[in-house]
Amino acid sequence: MAVNFQALAEEFTKFYYAQFDSDRAQLGNLYRDHSMLTFETSQLQGAKNIIEKLVSLPFQKVAHRISTLDAQPSSPTVGSVIVMVTGELLVDEEQNPQRYSQVFHLVPEGGSYYVFNDIFRLNYS
Amino acid sequence: MAVNFQALAEEFTKFYYAQFDSDRAQLGNLYRDHSMLTFETSQLQGAKNIIEKLVSLPFQKVAHRISTLDAQPSSPTVGSVIVMVTGELLVDEEQNPQRYSQVFHLVPEGGSYYVFNDIFRLNYS
Repeated sequence: MAVNFQALAEEFTKFYYAQFDSDRAQLGNLYRDHSMLTFETSQLQGAKNIIEKLVSLPFQKVAHRISTLDAQPSSPTVGSVIVMVTGELLVDEEQNPQRYSQVFHLVPEGGSYYVFNDIFRLNYS
Repeated sequence: MAVNFQALAEEFTKFYYAQFDSDRAQLGNLYRDHSMLTFETSQLQGAKNIIEKLVSLPFQKVAHRISTLDAQPSSPTVGSVIVMVTGELLVDEEQNPQRYSQVFHLVPEGGSYYVFNDIFRLNYS
């Protein structure tokens, strides 16, 4: 079966950010025990630690806006996908969005995908 | 053998950009036939096509400056690495750098690494 990696990545990312922006405590089922998150200078491993980190971020309201999204298959055999997003983050009552870059490495499992790698950086100017 | 993924990624990226900025026609041995490059909206596959694209970019002088570099192992078994770079690109006589984001997926082969995935985007503001 040919996989449309770009469409898959767009669907996943749309779902991920919608969940993040409404209730990020519920993202745990998208990570596994061996999943990794780099969030700015913090490095976490495992769904539990990753969600604790995401929930602890110091904002109440948050909205992600995608500027670019590019996807490539990351393996000749397994069906995994690398996604790079550049976008804007709006938090709380802040008027000026912060630009960010994020990578997801998605691995198929049981008809769905989980996040193996997640790297997030704000783009300081 | 434990691999220091961050150090490996920094070493690779330093070498890659030094080669890119001095003579990007020589980057071909870092890609394979199944390697992929997304450069802005262009998608290329294979070392030959990728190098043709890089050489065709419309600047003579170019310098990459890394702002952030983060790496994670991308597989529990194979030793492959995902690297996300954010940085600044200075081309020709332009005084204002352009910000960019780039992902490399590095795969080990014969004691070295090649680029399986390469995604590059300028960060438009």
